[in-house]
Amino acid sequence: MNWRISLINGPNLNMLGIREPEIYGKSSLADIEKEIKILAQQQGAEIDFFQSNHEGKIVDYIQEARGHFNCILINAGALSHYSIAIHDALKAVNIPVVEIHLSNIYARESFRQQSLISPLAVGGVFGFGVLSYKMAFLAACEFLAAGQKGKE
Amino acid sequence: MNWRISLINGPNLNMLGIREPEIYGKSSLADIEKEIKILAQQQGAEIDFFQSNHEGKIVDYIQEARGHFNCILINAGALSHYSIAIHDALKAVNIPVVEIHLSNIYARESFRQQSLISPLAVGGVFGFGVLSYKMAFLAACEFLAAGQKGKE
Amino acid sequence: MNWRISLINGPNLNMLGIREPEIYGKSSLADIEKEIKILAQQQGAEIDFFQSNHEGKIVDYIQEARGHFNCILINAGALSHYSIAIHDALKAVNIPVVEIHLSNIYARESFRQQSLISPLAVGGVFGFGVLSYKMAFLAACEFLAAGQKGKE
Amino acid sequence: MNWRISLINGPNLNMLGIREPEIYGKSSLADIEKEIKILAQQQGAEIDFFQSNHEGKIVDYIQEARGHFNCILINAGALSHYSIAIHDALKAVNIPVVEIHLSNIYARESFRQQSLISPLAVGGVFGFGVLSYKMAFLAACEFLAAGQKGKE
Amino acid sequence: MNWRISLINGPNLNMLGIREPEIYGKSSLADIEKEIKILAQQQGAEIDFFQSNHEGKIVDYIQEARGHFNCILINAGALSHYSIAIHDALKAVNIPVVEIHLSNIYARESFRQQSLISPLAVGGVFGFGVLSYKMAFLAACEFLAAGQKGKE
Amino acid sequence: MNWRISLINGPNLNMLGIREPEIYGKSSLADIEKEIKILAQQQGAEIDFFQSNHEGKIVDYIQEARGHFNCILINAGALSHYSIAIHDALKAVNIPVVEIHLSNIYARESFRQQSLISPLAVGGVFGFGVLSYKMAFLAACEFLAAGQKGKE
Amino acid sequence: MNWRISLINGPNLNMLGIREPEIYGKSSLADIEKEIKILAQQQGAEIDFFQSNHEGKIVDYIQEARGHFNCILINAGALSHYSIAIHDALKAVNIPVVEIHLSNIYARESFRQQSLISPLAVGGVFGFGVLSYKMAFLAACEFLAAGQKGKE
Amino acid sequence: MNWRISLINGPNLNMLGIREPEIYGKSSLADIEKEIKILAQQQGAEIDFFQSNHEGKIVDYIQEARGHFNCILINAGALSHYSIAIHDALKAVNIPVVEIHLSNIYARESFRQQSLISPLAVGGVFGFGVLSYKMAFLAACEFLAAGQKGKE
Amino acid sequence: MNWRISLINGPNLNMLGIREPEIYGKSSLADIEKEIKILAQQQGAEIDFFQSNHEGKIVDYIQEARGHFNCILINAGALSHYSIAIHDALKAVNIPVVEIHLSNIYARESFRQQSLISPLAVGGVFGFGVLSYKMAFLAACEFLAAGQKGKE
Amino acid sequence: MNWRISLINGPNLNMLGIREPEIYGKSSLADIEKEIKILAQQQGAEIDFFQSNHEGKIVDYIQEARGHFNCILINAGALSHYSIAIHDALKAVNIPVVEIHLSNIYARESFRQQSLISPLAVGGVFGFGVLSYKMAFLAACEFLAAGQKGKE
Amino acid sequence: MNWRISLINGPNLNMLGIREPEIYGKSSLADIEKEIKILAQQQGAEIDFFQSNHEGKIVDYIQEARGHFNCILINAGALSHYSIAIHDALKAVNIPVVEIHLSNIYARESFRQQSLISPLAVGGVFGFGVLSYKMAFLAACEFLAAGQKGKE
Amino acid sequence: MNWRISLINGPNLNMLGIREPEIYGKSSLADIEKEIKILAQQQGAEIDFFQSNHEGKIVDYIQEARGHFNCILINAGALSHYSIAIHDALKAVNIPVVEIHLSNIYARESFRQQSLISPLAVGGVFGFGVLSYKMAFLAACEFLAAGQKGKE
Repeated sequence: MNWRISLINGPNLNMLGIREPEIYGKSSLADIEKEIKILAQQQGAEIDFFQSNHEGKIVDYIQEARGHFNCILINAGALSHYSIAIHDALKAVNIPVVEIHLSNIYARESFRQQSLISPLAVGGVFGFGVLSYKMAFLAACEFLAAGQKGKE
Repeated sequence: MNWRISLINGPNLNMLGIREPEIYGKSSLADIEKEIKILAQQQGAEIDFFQSNHEGKIVDYIQEARGHFNCILINAGALSHYSIAIHDALKAVNIPVVEIHLSNIYARESFRQQSLISPLAVGGVFGFGVLSYKMAFLAACEFLAAGQKGKE
Repeated sequence: MNWRISLINGPNLNMLGIREPEIYGKSSLADIEKEIKILAQQQGAEIDFFQSNHEGKIVDYIQEARGHFNCILINAGALSHYSIAIHDALKAVNIPVVEIHLSNIYARESFRQQSLISPLAVGGVFGFGVLSYKMAFLAACEFLAAGQKGKE
Repeated sequence: MNWRISLINGPNLNMLGIREPEIYGKSSLADIEKEIKILAQQQGAEIDFFQSNHEGKIVDYIQEARGHFNCILINAGALSHYSIAIHDALKAVNIPVVEIHLSNIYARESFRQQSLISPLAVGGVFGFGVLSYKMAFLAACEFLAAGQKGKE
Repeated sequence: MNWRISLINGPNLNMLGIREPEIYGKSSLADIEKEIKILAQQQGAEIDFFQSNHEGKIVDYIQEARGHFNCILINAGALSHYSIAIHDALKAVNIPVVEIHLSNIYARESFRQQSLISPLAVGGVFGFGVLSYKMAFLAACEFLAAGQKGKE
Repeated sequence: MNWRISLINGPNLNMLGIREPEIYGKSSLADIEKEIKILAQQQGAEIDFFQSNHEGKIVDYIQEARGHFNCILINAGALSHYSIAIHDALKAVNIPVVEIHLSNIYARESFRQQSLISPLAVGGVFGFGVLSYKMAFLAACEFLAAGQKGKE
Repeated sequence: MNWRISLINGPNLNMLGIREPEIYGKSSLADIEKEIKILAQQQGAEIDFFQSNHEGKIVDYIQEARGHFNCILINAGALSHYSIAIHDALKAVNIPVVEIHLSNIYARESFRQQSLISPLAVGGVFGFGVLSYKMAFLAACEFLAAGQKGKE
Repeated sequence: MNWRISLINGPNLNMLGIREPEIYGKSSLADIEKEIKILAQQQGAEIDFFQSNHEGKIVDYIQEARGHFNCILINAGALSHYSIAIHDALKAVNIPVVEIHLSNIYARESFRQQSLISPLAVGGVFGFGVLSYKMAFLAACEFLAAGQKGKE
Repeated sequence: MNWRISLINGPNLNMLGIREPEIYGKSSLADIEKEIKILAQQQGAEIDFFQSNHEGKIVDYIQEARGHFNCILINAGALSHYSIAIHDALKAVNIPVVEIHLSNIYARESFRQQSLISPLAVGGVFGFGVLSYKMAFLAACEFLAAGQKGKE
Repeated sequence: MNWRISLINGPNLNMLGIREPEIYGKSSLADIEKEIKILAQQQGAEIDFFQSNHEGKIVDYIQEARGHFNCILINAGALSHYSIAIHDALKAVNIPVVEIHLSNIYARESFRQQSLISPLAVGGVFGFGVLSYKMAFLAACEFLAAGQKGKE
Repeated sequence: MNWRISLINGPNLNMLGIREPEIYGKSSLADIEKEIKILAQQQGAEIDFFQSNHEGKIVDYIQEARGHFNCILINAGALSHYSIAIHDALKAVNIPVVEIHLSNIYARESFRQQSLISPLAVGGVFGFGVLSYKMAFLAACEFLAAGQKGKE
Repeated sequence: MNWRISLINGPNLNMLGIREPEIYGKSSLADIEKEIKILAQQQGAEIDFFQSNHEGKIVDYIQEARGHFNCILINAGALSHYSIAIHDALKAVNIPVVEIHLSNIYARESFRQQSLISPLAVGGVFGFGVLSYKMAFLAACEFLAAGQKGKE
């Protein structure tokens, strides 16, 4: 179906491929977006990409997403762990949210083991590197197809 | 008297009326600002409005407020709970601060029950919805009229 | 309108003007009650004052308030921080509650930074000294006028 | 046998039937006392009822209970959770104590999940509404009949 | 009435009479079951007994209880304090639960002072030794008779 | 490729469709296994299913899995949160692990918000109901295809 | 010199000699007051005794003590550990406070190891039984004689 | 002398030699049991070996150990850290317990640094690999020889 | 009577009069010892003084005190808060201990609010400056005279 | 040598000289940058200055610093204590980091006593006011000269 | 073989036989050292004994041990629980460490349940009284014989 | 100018060059002192060196430093983290203190991440190895030259 899906990436995810490749893998964000674009075409879905290192810009973008997207995929990076503002923005626009993490955040520093996005997400995928994005995208499509509503 | 007062609103408060109306009420931020403007005219005070989803812009604005305002009214929204930078900016400009919350933050998630702005405010009003703003504005006027200095 | 409003003051608030005036200000409780009385007359409201150093008497009073008042304004003083009995009494009578604190309790000892009354209040005002009472009274009147129900 | 048993109720239990009936049920305290009186007559026991919203009066009453009762049944209500004074009074008179709670305190707010009375009780009954009182009364009679000494 | 009631005992309760008699009393589990059987006959209820030292077997048993019993009485022993699996099984079968403890768990080691079963029980009885079982059985019968639904 | 994959389900997952369907959905475990079987056939993979309510049997099964499977998919249910024995078994057999949760465990009780399996998993999927299983299966296949080694 | 000194005893201290004599000793409160009276006469001081089981009455008494006493000796008993109201009353009247405990509160239950009175006392004596009172009285006299001001 | 000693091994200890050999060493459990058997013959003691991955079976075994053994040597593996049921079983049978750990549990994950078996053991040996077992066996023999009673 | 009493002072107490006189007062340790000497002569007691900045020397001294003294008065200064070795030494020699603090340690930094000596002291005196020593000395004499044994 | 060094200042450091001069001193940021410029010329190093109140801009700047600088000196101000995004950016660019604080953060509010930058810095200087910057600059030069690699 | 082994005892272990014999047993330190000497002769090992109540002397001794011993046996007594200096000294000399405790420290006060020596020890023996020393000595000999390196 | 400066090193710093060189570097303490001596000569300052493994000797030394030095540089090593006695001694002598750490203590074990010396230091330098000493010395000279008073 013709779902409109947004993929948001938070701070430092524009550094993928460069930043700690032993943790985050060798693909760049452009590589990931290309792979998701292909999947979107296969699914007949529209996809919109957004990346920012600025919490405020992410909040602005989410607010504007209201009414334009059927689902938000988000890897908020470091901001996952402390941005109540992004948490609030996602709640305010009332669009199903799917959470993504490249790395297994539960096997890292204690401050990375809690996400403020998890509690309001439909679901999430973590730890599979680029695969996390692909799985999350497919899950979003199936979720939308099933006409399920987000479980908050 | 001719007080110059600033009213700052933080992230997602531009979504008022849309965002979780059962918690935040149905008035938009424009509605609130209109009500405060009327009150200001009644009190013979000047009022300046500022809203941003960006912590950095709020810090910039507060810094520039120095010497221009007699009092800052602030509902920092989600940033109330983790922005040490806004806390520091408010301390740096040394203007009396009045804290506002639309909802009763003490009856919500535990991460919303502590505010980094409270300890440096003259006082605050919470839980009355739009009325919180009006009460805070009136309190600020009376506080200034009484020539009281901020109790930090 | 002809609201019936009760103003309850807890332990040591009868010492106002004497007790630590640098924190609590120079007005006596009688001064405050006089100011609130004038406001009440302006608003066409009835006001009833009660002060006690005894938790049990405050509980008794709240229980008897049932059916007699449209709103309870309460500054429970020290008891705000540990009296589950007053919390329960306020819940039991099901009257909207407005919380008042003279001082900014969030800028004081850690044991004063949590109130058992906040979670069940419609809203509250803190830190403005005598002004806290006046603002709380006005907020109560506007709240009742708006026919809003308490958000618990 | 001719046991003399005291039933103490703490703050707000005189509001039963009125206060949050979805938690505490529809019976009034008078209804409960009537039911217990009938049970007492069936068991050939004397029963004495006491209710107060005042911690101090409950302490006074417990002190006077010394030598007059074989067992104290107590639902200290909100005071269960913070009154070390009642804890001490119960210890001082050295009479077996049976604890009662109408509601399931372990399924409610965290501040209600610890009781200062539990550690010194013979045993307790919680969560069954009025039935909690009846079960506690029967348990007390059987406990006394068995000549068991309180396990502190 | 013809209630079908199940009584489940967890690990080491088959050691009653042998295990720390100063805490758990001198009656064996067979003694207790005999007493409950008599009570059941008096009440015209069917009773089914189950004891296991195996968490998994208790979970199996609870699952099979679905549709067969009107009420589950459970003293999960040590497993009360850490078995989320039993908690989940009890929730899954949706039968009213009554919690039993022989000893006063609130007067013992800190790791015994929290029960994962309490929050989902209708109510519970603790500390009366064998009497805890009898009171719990009677409470269950009265609870069922009153057609009350479990308060979770 | 001809991967051999094992899917382990822990306690109460045999109750799916019956147990709290508003949280866990309406599909039975057999339904899920059927869906995964179809996916496996599409991927040319072998799949082995195991469910138990017994921690010990799950540990036995995992130990025997050594050398027989290329990947373990596991939804350990309640045991995820406290079974160090399963954690140790998974570590001992040194097979890549993919974690699955039907519900969003981060939006539920605090004791469900930490998993002892997460830190040693390659990655995981949570919150999508049956979809969580399918995504996890696909992720496992792609992960194996990519010849990636488990990131522990 | 002609000091006026007040000795306040909190809940259950009227039970001395009866209550747990292995902890609190065999002397009654009357015995203690007699001993202190003799000491007072030796020192040429006036002494006033007050005991209550009611927090509110102790607060009332302390408030009235203002201007009448040079020093307050207080053993607030159980209330030492949670009565912020007594803490506030002592602060409000601004009279030097000497804290007394019969038992060694630091060797007892954890909830008895913190006193809300200690931080505002000049000093204190604990653990010596009746002797604690005598030493505290002598310390108060010497403290007053030395014209030292309370170190708060 | 002719002591009867039991050696219990918990979950995953049957994987010794295979499981993380850099932590647990290269000897299999059979190797260890062979070494202990030799020591037992040298000491003229009977030895009984038991290993299970099932908490329930270990509890069953301990209960049956009552009256048959003079000492229990136990390495409960992962269950050391959360099985209150095993703790209770060991207490119930009242046989001296010697605790064994292959690895230095105090130098590993925080959840492995506390043992529920330690507080009721006579003593223990940790960190020496296979040697831990031998030392524990010798300690048990000497302990029994000395006729010392378990210090609980 | 002819009691032999030891007065031990810990680190930095040799700096009295110099060190933070607003907290510790203007008297030197020599002044204090002189005052105590006079009191000792009045009481017919022998007094031995010891001060060291070295934890080890204090432990040595306490060990040697065994059999030579009827009572130890100790102000261990900073070591009160972390020296388990001094705690153990005092326990080992089994002589009644009286604890002294010049300042009110409960009104200072949180790390000074717990003493490892308090739990094993007969009793203690804090906050009275030099007077703390005198009161402690008198309390010790009366305590010994009363033939009371240390309450540990 | 010709090192290229960057000096980053976080929120409110542009207020230096104005903001709480009793804590932060009287020099403006321009004064500090002038002093560092002189030092840089003496050392033959290039220096680049950047200040922002925006977390996002600091993250952008750090990302762009990759490959252009030999060392980053950073006083992230308030963001030191909560910005995981800056922490991640500094890790991603893999340039040695030297941390600077004007004030002694360990002697201030508890929320300022932990820095997320410290764990990944080579080293740091705190508390010396403007001198902190100069010392940090010199340390960076010597560190680079010594060809030492950052100890992370 | 000709191992050179050092046995270090910390504060108050020179009081063995005198100090709390119900916890520490009746043997003196000389008795223990005699027993170890005999064992050493049997094993053909050299043994060096050191005891001190002074943390500093133990640190000095450990530093001098460098290059002279193959293994350090240490019962640091009270210092086990807080001396980071001894921890550091043991790390600095890089000699295998075996930890000894006479009593079962895990069954005593909470401040004795953590040891700063455990994390860096090869292994340890606790709770067996004098036997702990003998087992530790034998373990050390076997450990050295096996040419095993310390597992830190 | 002719400043007199003292450099104190705590336990195990005499092992520098030997102890964990990957953390602490290869220079010996003598090397460091030589470098500081040269710097001192360049600055026209007198320098005094002191190292001890004994807390008590460091306290003695600090006390004697009173009146002889203008500044104390101190790397208290392990004692930084628990010696309240050294904290008190430094406060007592009222000389500006500069704290030094060779390693980055904030990137190590949690027990090394808090220093009792930091809160009373003028400032500090950490993580630069030997360079930390040189920077601290220069900072001290500049600090003294500027006639700045210690900010405590």
